[in-house]
Amino acid sequence: MSEFNWPDGKSAAAAFTFDVDAESAVLWGNEAAGARMSVMSHQAYGPLVGIPRILNLLERHQIASTFFVPGHTADRYPEAVRSIVAAGHEIAHHGYLHEQPTALTLEQEIDAIDRGLAALADVAGVRPVGYRAPMWDLSWRTPALLAERGFLYDSSLMDADLPYELAVDGHGPLVEIPIQWALDDWEQFCFLPDIAGSGLIESPRKARELWQLEFDGLRRAGACWVLTNHPFLTGRTSRAAELDDLMRYVLEHDDVWTTNLGSIAEHVRTLGLEPRSITPPDVPR
Amino acid sequence: MSEFNWPDGKSAAAAFTFDVDAESAVLWGNEAAGARMSVMSHQAYGPLVGIPRILNLLERHQIASTFFVPGHTADRYPEAVRSIVAAGHEIAHHGYLHEQPTALTLEQEIDAIDRGLAALADVAGVRPVGYRAPMWDLSWRTPALLAERGFLYDSSLMDADLPYELAVDGHGPLVEIPIQWALDDWEQFCFLPDIAGSGLIESPRKARELWQLEFDGLRRAGACWVLTNHPFLTGRTSRAAELDDLMRYVLEHDDVWTTNLGSIAEHVRTLGLEPRSITPPDVPR
Amino acid sequence: MSEFNWPDGKSAAAAFTFDVDAESAVLWGNEAAGARMSVMSHQAYGPLVGIPRILNLLERHQIASTFFVPGHTADRYPEAVRSIVAAGHEIAHHGYLHEQPTALTLEQEIDAIDRGLAALADVAGVRPVGYRAPMWDLSWRTPALLAERGFLYDSSLMDADLPYELAVDGHGPLVEIPIQWALDDWEQFCFLPDIAGSGLIESPRKARELWQLEFDGLRRAGACWVLTNHPFLTGRTSRAAELDDLMRYVLEHDDVWTTNLGSIAEHVRTLGLEPRSITPPDVPR
Amino acid sequence: MSEFNWPDGKSAAAAFTFDVDAESAVLWGNEAAGARMSVMSHQAYGPLVGIPRILNLLERHQIASTFFVPGHTADRYPEAVRSIVAAGHEIAHHGYLHEQPTALTLEQEIDAIDRGLAALADVAGVRPVGYRAPMWDLSWRTPALLAERGFLYDSSLMDADLPYELAVDGHGPLVEIPIQWALDDWEQFCFLPDIAGSGLIESPRKARELWQLEFDGLRRAGACWVLTNHPFLTGRTSRAAELDDLMRYVLEHDDVWTTNLGSIAEHVRTLGLEPRSITPPDVPR
Repeated sequence: MSEFNWPDGKSAAAAFTFDVDAESAVLWGNEAAGARMSVMSHQAYGPLVGIPRILNLLERHQIASTFFVPGHTADRYPEAVRSIVAAGHEIAHHGYLHEQPTALTLEQEIDAIDRGLAALADVAGVRPVGYRAPMWDLSWRTPALLAERGFLYDSSLMDADLPYELAVDGHGPLVEIPIQWALDDWEQFCFLPDIAGSGLIESPRKARELWQLEFDGLRRAGACWVLTNHPFLTGRTSRAAELDDLMRYVLEHDDVWTTNLGSIAEHVRTLGLEPRSITPPDVPR
Repeated sequence: MSEFNWPDGKSAAAAFTFDVDAESAVLWGNEAAGARMSVMSHQAYGPLVGIPRILNLLERHQIASTFFVPGHTADRYPEAVRSIVAAGHEIAHHGYLHEQPTALTLEQEIDAIDRGLAALADVAGVRPVGYRAPMWDLSWRTPALLAERGFLYDSSLMDADLPYELAVDGHGPLVEIPIQWALDDWEQFCFLPDIAGSGLIESPRKARELWQLEFDGLRRAGACWVLTNHPFLTGRTSRAAELDDLMRYVLEHDDVWTTNLGSIAEHVRTLGLEPRSITPPDVPR
Repeated sequence: MSEFNWPDGKSAAAAFTFDVDAESAVLWGNEAAGARMSVMSHQAYGPLVGIPRILNLLERHQIASTFFVPGHTADRYPEAVRSIVAAGHEIAHHGYLHEQPTALTLEQEIDAIDRGLAALADVAGVRPVGYRAPMWDLSWRTPALLAERGFLYDSSLMDADLPYELAVDGHGPLVEIPIQWALDDWEQFCFLPDIAGSGLIESPRKARELWQLEFDGLRRAGACWVLTNHPFLTGRTSRAAELDDLMRYVLEHDDVWTTNLGSIAEHVRTLGLEPRSITPPDVPR
Repeated sequence: MSEFNWPDGKSAAAAFTFDVDAESAVLWGNEAAGARMSVMSHQAYGPLVGIPRILNLLERHQIASTFFVPGHTADRYPEAVRSIVAAGHEIAHHGYLHEQPTALTLEQEIDAIDRGLAALADVAGVRPVGYRAPMWDLSWRTPALLAERGFLYDSSLMDADLPYELAVDGHGPLVEIPIQWALDDWEQFCFLPDIAGSGLIESPRKARELWQLEFDGLRRAGACWVLTNHPFLTGRTSRAAELDDLMRYVLEHDDVWTTNLGSIAEHVRTLGLEPRSITPPDVPR
């Protein structure tokens, strides 16, 4: 296998990414949540307030980011999604109604991917090259579905600190850019009674400590730090303020390549890494 | 849409609000909880001890506040509710038995609103102009029911940092003063086995950090910070001590208009803002 | 009503109390837990290791404490219970198998009380004057059952900062010494998969901050701080170390009367306070 | 009973142990989890990334450790398991598919033990002398099954600060090296939606404080500190960094014997302690 290296003599990479779930994250599998006006408004905060605030942060720091946008979000908030494109950020695929792939039949999973593609094309004129599974819950068949549709990368697995080439049966490989639950804002901030969350809400300071320590660790390891924030959560002012300061902190490390996932995936593709095959575990009866 | 501005050259607003749920919050939908004397006493702490302590804090800081009072609380603790009125604070509507609007039929929702109005009138001689949905769970039909009854404002939605005019079909608009889960004491402090809470209880210091950081953020954004405390939770001495110090902190910022929600709503109404229509999301099958 | 005051010019009171649940707390209502040897050993840590460590702390600080001992604990660990008596501490009633009173029929509740009394008499020669409901979940009929049996006090309600006289229909009153969930170690430390706990375990430092802040608050209020620890939880070395230092902190405040609940109850009885009647709330249909 | 003492004049002991659960911990009792590629990748991080990183830490600090390896992990990741052996660490038994002993029939429990033994022999040429129950949930019959198979020690009970000899009916005793939930990384870091965890993820700083305070406490008590980390959790860079620093801290205390559990068990066996009988509690009907 070829050696992994980062471009331009950089020693590690960092990406600020956003899952723009809005209402879809709570509606999928729970249509009754649509009858709860306050719950819907909690999710709407993301595109209405969170996205403009986050775009402003990214602009000030001149950071290129990746936004994973469910098709439903694009259909309901076309202006918000177009504003992301207009600011020069990458739009990537995140299902249509934030459907959890492992809970779907093959036909449903195909439908979710294709409807998501259609919505992003219609609303924002975008054909995404990247995908992240809703609920961060990739099925074993998703990679082939992505490869068939010409996706360059996925960002839903958790078994590495560095991106790699993921072998896909019958297709060329996908670049995989791993994520991890500790670099997500959902566990820190999400509270939706009867729907999601531990019941607690953490201070932005605590979340920032957690994320910054892992940045320090992954940087020392020469690896790839991928933070995920949800505009409906981290778009809140005090969380955005910590994110702002964390952006400053990350950028102060000029040995780190801070960019979006599409750029990272393109770089990884140039490395000619040998694809890794991953197989489901046997379960003895 | 008209420009949003605050009166008297203020750059932001802050409100300390209280949801006076007492027993109602645990009895609704769970009548069996009434057989648990300790649980009932946990809730009774609010009107018996929490309210006098909080009224004292507000008096010392000369803060005008809003108390959302379920009708059941008024009927069970008339003296406590009258003491709020006597101290010059606003009484607002919070259902009769803290009924979650989205779990009710239209008839039940109407009944809860009207019984709540009757109890506040009977006990405290008050006709409230503000409403907050129990469980912070407004139904899509609630705004029209409020508008029909002449309410000026609601404070149950979460999709903005600033108040706005909420369009109501067939009626004039309601002022909406948004709230958010991170500015609530329930997630930090509430523990009622088999009834509510994450199972953990946070330190008052941690809650105060969270609330103060969001105050700083909303102030910088020129927006409206609305904190919600429950007397049965934050009426406890160490939490009240942190609230006391947070009141001092907020008041030190003289660019912030610290007042009750009724005053904020009246101000918003004078701005002539264009009403915002909010519609339920489509859910594709 | 007479004025409340503390003896000897003290301005507040503090009590370190212990609920010695051992296996009973997990066996009641869940007999299958008895088949889990690790779970049983987790509970056995209390009498085997926690009690000697805690008795040592109390001895060094010369603090008189109250131990609420289920009859089952006395029957299974007679030496541990006798060592508490031998050290001069108060033994109080905590059910037989830690039965939650509100889940029992009247006959079952009577049986649990009487079996608990018998076990404490048999094992330790003790007739307790104090009671605390298992699960801190008093039923509305418990006070009369206690009064019939000559108990002086209960410590299971949560509606006051100060002890009071609780009126009991058809009997003389009981002294009530209130507790609160934030002054308990269970929420901070208990983790028993599939049985109890939030799933998280807190640092002893955090718990100590919480308890100390509430001590400061209740002291300023002239009230009564009642901390509850479980030997199977706070008997662990690092938690006991924080408790040790908290005992030092509390004792440094010589305006505070640090004693056991029996002494507090006897003092309260001398005050001639007018008994308070508490009634279950009406629940409208 | 003989006096307990540590060798070479040491006053306490410390062991860094690792439960190498990988996929087995989520597959047992939940075969459907195998269909979730992201979940499987989350677990695979342990052997793929966590183990090499942890072996490197142990090598730098020259610490001898114990790894509890389910047979399934050995079968799926033979190279990872051999690398542990090659680095000189102890391999111990942890079931085959991480089967919770108390949920098994006798035949199933025997099967799990024997398949685990076979896998460790086949893959790593190892016959373990130590055992830790999956889910830390020993059944009352497990000790006899271990004794029959010549195991020296178990590390699954929680009722002591010091190791002891556990009497086993019809067999010689087992050394028991106690553990506790607060010295485990699962409660601090594990988040697997619908599978495990409180929903929250803690900062590595908080976990380290908790573990270090308990080290301080157990050291003062002359006892035995046994920390358990899971490579799929603490193998992450920022957690490994805190573990690295904690290893430094522990080793700075040269009155503490830092070693693996096998060495501790062998030492305990030399002490000639009187075996302790533990019996299930009676549960009154």
